[in-house]
Amino acid sequence: VLPLAFFVTDSNPALIPLSLVVVFGSAKLMAEIFERLGQPGIVGEILAGILIGPYALGWMAPNQILTVLSDLGVMFLLFRVGLDIKSSDLMKVGGTAAVVAVTGVVLPFFLGWGILLLWGAPHLEAIFTGAAMVATSVGITAGVLAGKGLLDERASRIILAAAVIDDVLGLLVLSLVSSMARGKVNVLELCLTAAIALAFTAIVARWGSRTMHRVVPRVQKRLYVSEGEFALALCLLFGLSLLAVYAGVAAIVGAFLAGMALSETVERRVVDLTSGVSELLVPFFLAGIGLRLDLTAFASRGTILLAIVILIAAVLSKFIGCGLGAIRLGRKDAVRVGVGMIPRGEVGMVVAQIGLGMGVIAQGVYGTIVFMSVATTLVAPPLLKWAYRGARERREPEDGTARIG
Amino acid sequence: VLPLAFFVTDSNPALIPLSLVVVFGSAKLMAEIFERLGQPGIVGEILAGILIGPYALGWMAPNQILTVLSDLGVMFLLFRVGLDIKSSDLMKVGGTAAVVAVTGVVLPFFLGWGILLLWGAPHLEAIFTGAAMVATSVGITAGVLAGKGLLDERASRIILAAAVIDDVLGLLVLSLVSSMARGKVNVLELCLTAAIALAFTAIVARWGSRTMHRVVPRVQKRLYVSEGEFALALCLLFGLSLLAVYAGVAAIVGAFLAGMALSETVERRVVDLTSGVSELLVPFFLAGIGLRLDLTAFASRGTILLAIVILIAAVLSKFIGCGLGAIRLGRKDAVRVGVGMIPRGEVGMVVAQIGLGMGVIAQGVYGTIVFMSVATTLVAPPLLKWAYRGARERREPEDGTARIG
Repeated sequence: VLPLAFFVTDSNPALIPLSLVVVFGSAKLMAEIFERLGQPGIVGEILAGILIGPYALGWMAPNQILTVLSDLGVMFLLFRVGLDIKSSDLMKVGGTAAVVAVTGVVLPFFLGWGILLLWGAPHLEAIFTGAAMVATSVGITAGVLAGKGLLDERASRIILAAAVIDDVLGLLVLSLVSSMARGKVNVLELCLTAAIALAFTAIVARWGSRTMHRVVPRVQKRLYVSEGEFALALCLLFGLSLLAVYAGVAAIVGAFLAGMALSETVERRVVDLTSGVSELLVPFFLAGIGLRLDLTAFASRGTILLAIVILIAAVLSKFIGCGLGAIRLGRKDAVRVGVGMIPRGEVGMVVAQIGLGMGVIAQGVYGTIVFMSVATTLVAPPLLKWAYRGARERREPEDGTARIG
Repeated sequence: VLPLAFFVTDSNPALIPLSLVVVFGSAKLMAEIFERLGQPGIVGEILAGILIGPYALGWMAPNQILTVLSDLGVMFLLFRVGLDIKSSDLMKVGGTAAVVAVTGVVLPFFLGWGILLLWGAPHLEAIFTGAAMVATSVGITAGVLAGKGLLDERASRIILAAAVIDDVLGLLVLSLVSSMARGKVNVLELCLTAAIALAFTAIVARWGSRTMHRVVPRVQKRLYVSEGEFALALCLLFGLSLLAVYAGVAAIVGAFLAGMALSETVERRVVDLTSGVSELLVPFFLAGIGLRLDLTAFASRGTILLAIVILIAAVLSKFIGCGLGAIRLGRKDAVRVGVGMIPRGEVGMVVAQIGLGMGVIAQGVYGTIVFMSVATTLVAPPLLKWAYRGARERREPEDGTARIG
């Protein structure tokens, strides 16, 4: 353990530059090494987080600065991806995406639930584990696909649309299991939650783009403030992220919808400026996933076995569930969709944290879920590379603006 | 008071998007209004912070998220400004800048000290107040000059160089008064502090650019990772900011030196991506200054009088001190330099906070210093506009990349 860790205290004026240089520097170094080895740079950035984290080198522990940058990072990642997607393209695949989302929620839930019951866990713990296996973290997949210029593929659009729907379903599952843990299930309240979340998502996805078509050209040239169009885009991003949280879905869904609403009207300059922000912040999101991996949970051999079983179940259930949902598009696209929905990332961890906070989930199972979340995220990028082999990559080598992360 | 303030708690998932939308949105709205009225947008953004802050609308209080974004914001502001400055240009005006810095430190210090003694304050409190009046906050002036494309003017370069030297001198004054407050002045230690700070600044300013001339072209085309040159630039930025803190000067001095070291070698794309980050973050720095204005100190009439006297002394002492230092360049440039060095911004507040923490400064005097810091910052942009009237503005209307904040 290097002495760097000693510097990390809140009262230290070096904390911000130190956190920045250690996390960003190691993430980019590992990304460079992985790219040179022909592997996805994203995996390198997550591994960098594990490497510098408390259970390996011990250079860095999660702190408030990194949390803020990581939360902002995933927000800008999804915003940037949204800027490359036309909402009409996403609408076209809406039906298939809905099927993919539903089958990809049902199978992981029941599999996780069943495994925990077989392992002898209490009923509520089994239900929470199932819930933690439901939510897809679209950030990783979107990052890989955007980085390779593959967002235009049909499978990619289905993955993005399904991930948005998946987030709404995940919210419902979480609300349901939380109210079960509190011992009172209010069906009316659940329906209301569902209705608000669905209405928000559907309205913004459906009419956001059209509204911006009217608003942006009128405002664009009339602003006195410098980079006014970028400032307006950021206001929409932050506003819709906030509304998304109020509507009950994740802030990143709002961020993605904001990007998509602007994708057809906004000038190239806004996309470039956004790329600058996402290039800076996304490594903090990726390394942050690795930093949060907690290895103390794996003290007993039983937990290690459980973790491996859960990991396999998490990979297979999403792959089969989502793949079956997209099977009518042919085997190739079904495989791509199935692989793209595998990563759980930070979403699974949030569910596990809520369960832990409610006293429903034991520390060992919590560690298992965090391990599953990180491991599915590490597994996805190489699998995606394999599933998309032969696809025409939309490269923009002059300025590289299509690449993220 | 709107109910928004109730949402601002640390456990709230809406805290990040809420802070972003309220602070960024109001800052940009006020900037737009001010620009339309022909006033500097920067003043609007600081006033937005006062307006939404605890003593006016009460929508937002300073929180950890905003602190992180504000610290990063001023770092990127200075980095972005550095990217537009050749170190050789700054070296040419080094002699004059050193004189400006020294006279601009001596006069405010003794004036602040004398006023507090006349007011009947204890000796140490008077010394600390003098120290808080010393340090120039270059962020505001740099923002105004960059925004108007005036960084190429001779006076602008002198201001920037003097502000960097000023930061080293300010550090020494702070070290000196802190050790006086602790009751033991170690001359050898002070000299060592001075030597390290000066050596760091001089070495990076002198050889940074030359080193980058050798390193950047070699590395530039060999990176596999996307936007690799931008990632490298950020690593240099964070690394030099950290070294600056370790060397005893402010992180923003390191950020400025990093930008300047890269200014002659880096590609346009890196400048554009950096602009994206600074456009996002700088409003948090500006509004953050306004947010921290504490009006409770002005309960008594005596404190209000003291605040006004200190404000006038702060403006005049820097104007006359720095102006005299640059007088051999002619009256016009002397006025520009004098005006450009007026803002104290966050630097004065930091000194006051240290004094408060040591129990040397009373609450009333603390409030006075914070007021002086904010007010000098508000006064500078209109004065700069007046001092630079008739100067040839270097506009780049196609993409507007020369504009900041």
